[in-house]
Amino acid sequence: MNSNLTDEAYARAALTYLAEPTDRWLGPLIRVCGATAALDAIRTHGVPPDAGIPRGKGREAIKAAIERWRTRLPELPAPEEVTAFRQSGIRLVCPGDPEWPGQLADLGDDQPYALWLRGNADLRFSCLRSVAIVGSRAATAYGSYVAAEFAASVAARGLAVVSGGAFGVDAAAHRGALGADGVTVAVLACGVDMAYPAAHAELFDAIAAQGVLVSEWPPGRSVSRLRFLVRNRVIAALAAGTLVVEAGQRSGAVNTARHARDLSRVLMAVPGPVTSDLSAGCHQILREWQGTLVTSATDVIEQLSPIGELPAAEPGTVVQSASGRRVPPVFPRDLLDLESARVLDAMPRRGGMGTVRVAQRAGLAPATTATLLGKLATGGFVERCDDGWRLRRG
Amino acid sequence: MNSNLTDEAYARAALTYLAEPTDRWLGPLIRVCGATAALDAIRTHGVPPDAGIPRGKGREAIKAAIERWRTRLPELPAPEEVTAFRQSGIRLVCPGDPEWPGQLADLGDDQPYALWLRGNADLRFSCLRSVAIVGSRAATAYGSYVAAEFAASVAARGLAVVSGGAFGVDAAAHRGALGADGVTVAVLACGVDMAYPAAHAELFDAIAAQGVLVSEWPPGRSVSRLRFLVRNRVIAALAAGTLVVEAGQRSGAVNTARHARDLSRVLMAVPGPVTSDLSAGCHQILREWQGTLVTSATDVIEQLSPIGELPAAEPGTVVQSASGRRVPPVFPRDLLDLESARVLDAMPRRGGMGTVRVAQRAGLAPATTATLLGKLATGGFVERCDDGWRLRRG
Repeated sequence: MNSNLTDEAYARAALTYLAEPTDRWLGPLIRVCGATAALDAIRTHGVPPDAGIPRGKGREAIKAAIERWRTRLPELPAPEEVTAFRQSGIRLVCPGDPEWPGQLADLGDDQPYALWLRGNADLRFSCLRSVAIVGSRAATAYGSYVAAEFAASVAARGLAVVSGGAFGVDAAAHRGALGADGVTVAVLACGVDMAYPAAHAELFDAIAAQGVLVSEWPPGRSVSRLRFLVRNRVIAALAAGTLVVEAGQRSGAVNTARHARDLSRVLMAVPGPVTSDLSAGCHQILREWQGTLVTSATDVIEQLSPIGELPAAEPGTVVQSASGRRVPPVFPRDLLDLESARVLDAMPRRGGMGTVRVAQRAGLAPATTATLLGKLATGGFVERCDDGWRLRRG
Repeated sequence: MNSNLTDEAYARAALTYLAEPTDRWLGPLIRVCGATAALDAIRTHGVPPDAGIPRGKGREAIKAAIERWRTRLPELPAPEEVTAFRQSGIRLVCPGDPEWPGQLADLGDDQPYALWLRGNADLRFSCLRSVAIVGSRAATAYGSYVAAEFAASVAARGLAVVSGGAFGVDAAAHRGALGADGVTVAVLACGVDMAYPAAHAELFDAIAAQGVLVSEWPPGRSVSRLRFLVRNRVIAALAAGTLVVEAGQRSGAVNTARHARDLSRVLMAVPGPVTSDLSAGCHQILREWQGTLVTSATDVIEQLSPIGELPAAEPGTVVQSASGRRVPPVFPRDLLDLESARVLDAMPRRGGMGTVRVAQRAGLAPATTATLLGKLATGGFVERCDDGWRLRRG
């Protein structure tokens, strides 16, 4: 969210107020005519003829949906109010923004209209190497222990943990990652300023300090049963893989696992005693869904990082991204080769700069500098601008 | 073992005294020239020229092996002594005998020279529908519970349990099967008249009363570390599938599982807590060896009995085979269709009878009777003889 809110960003923020996520008609409407036109259509009581919606049954259904969405128009904040959330540490991230996790596109028309974030970690970078650790609210001592241990181990090795905000496995996973000084991502079914359950207010603050809270719902929104289920697809889509630690059959964690499978993410489960109902969901995932049985954090990392694909990171390395936010060491600044680091140091804190000038400041040949700037752009550190190159989110 | 011991049977009995099972040279020697000639060669200090062994390196190696086997000649019992074991309830079973489990042929040259049995169950019939339940001697309460529960459930549904004689999972599996009035088979690494461990003397007597004790070693032989390992292949080969309940990595149960895999038997494992070393072997089997994760006795039965392949049996049905020995209801007499049962009833208690005479006694058409006799032979109830058909072991 820039200090100057674009029309598109405001429209997406507004849509998170007006419609529930995965609305059958809003996703397609945004895809066809964009968020700004969609919001205009809702406000002006109809679909503009030039909005690209073909005539016929679908158009009638969208008109009916618009009537539905209009019921929440009184709740709509003004653009200044959306911008003002920033003062409470709450930022809006939209598709195309540097912090937007591109993998959410795998959700198709069900991708979130926008995300509300609170916390110091960079969401996009954190999720590039991440694992969702999910499971039962009523976890046994075994489940809580495994969730915390695995989360601590993967976090110490540079993976971000993604989970919900519930008691049991969710909380144990976050606490494990926090204890290892890692990055953890809590995807909530309420506004990022809300604490549900209330007993987790302090935990959520700790996550915001060291990781990031994420929601599809605007600040102030409370949870509902349906919102938990809808939220699960975001957990599965954000993470490179999903690990189910303990789950009953037909539980929320099994629902998240189903999303992970449908999204072709790595699906893993921790086995447990066959005498425990809370391992039945895990065994179902292993038997029927071809989930991978994992018995250690090393197994998890191997599943997510085929040998040679990802750079090895020093245990416990957590660095700042160019955005200034915490990231696990995906393309961490302190693991850059010396010349790349010099180019990055040479970039101006604000605004853009031409390649030749950067080369002069870095003391490197312009051709070398141009190559390195391209690589740094791939790594998400810099981006092209009218003046040449600038720090991303700098 | 007939009351009149054949030369071949005596030779095989003798070979269990002279050589250890899976001897590199004895299996091939028996295959090439038969057990009687093999025993003669050992006794006469050389391989007879007409024994079928080609000249060359192999022949030299066999001559060296013969010198080795000769060291135990003083232990060799006379034929009368072998026959006399029958009075202690110990019988010898050789390849080709009605009670010989044909599936042992899958072991190739490593198939047992003969088997010594003690107990009331028919080994061949019991193993047709059976599952090996194996695991750690130092089983946890969880492992012992699961072994006993699964064994009781599969035994109640007509499967025989096969296991070793050790503490822990083996003992729990036998006790579970016995408690369900089922048939259980203990494959020992010592003579069937020996109790190892000594604390299992009563358990072994209970198994003999309701099931059968099996050994490749002659009466009086004691266990050794190597014998346990060699024995494991027989457990895996006898049973239609092997279930590992709890096992450390590099344990005897994992060794049995490896044999089951190599023999293309159904391989199953029970998952457990990843925090338990005694589930590590099970998880290894599930991950690396494509073992099937099972969480209930129903899972086990489904793996062993694809729908429609085996006749359904009433829970708890245990019947007598034509041999008079206990068998689980594989092709049980009381589940035969009415006409087959009439043919079986018409068979003489002793000696053979022609098809037409059987048809007359049964009151059925000769053609029908001939067809049914063929099916009864497949089921192991009758066999061809010089006079026509006779009861098998009748």
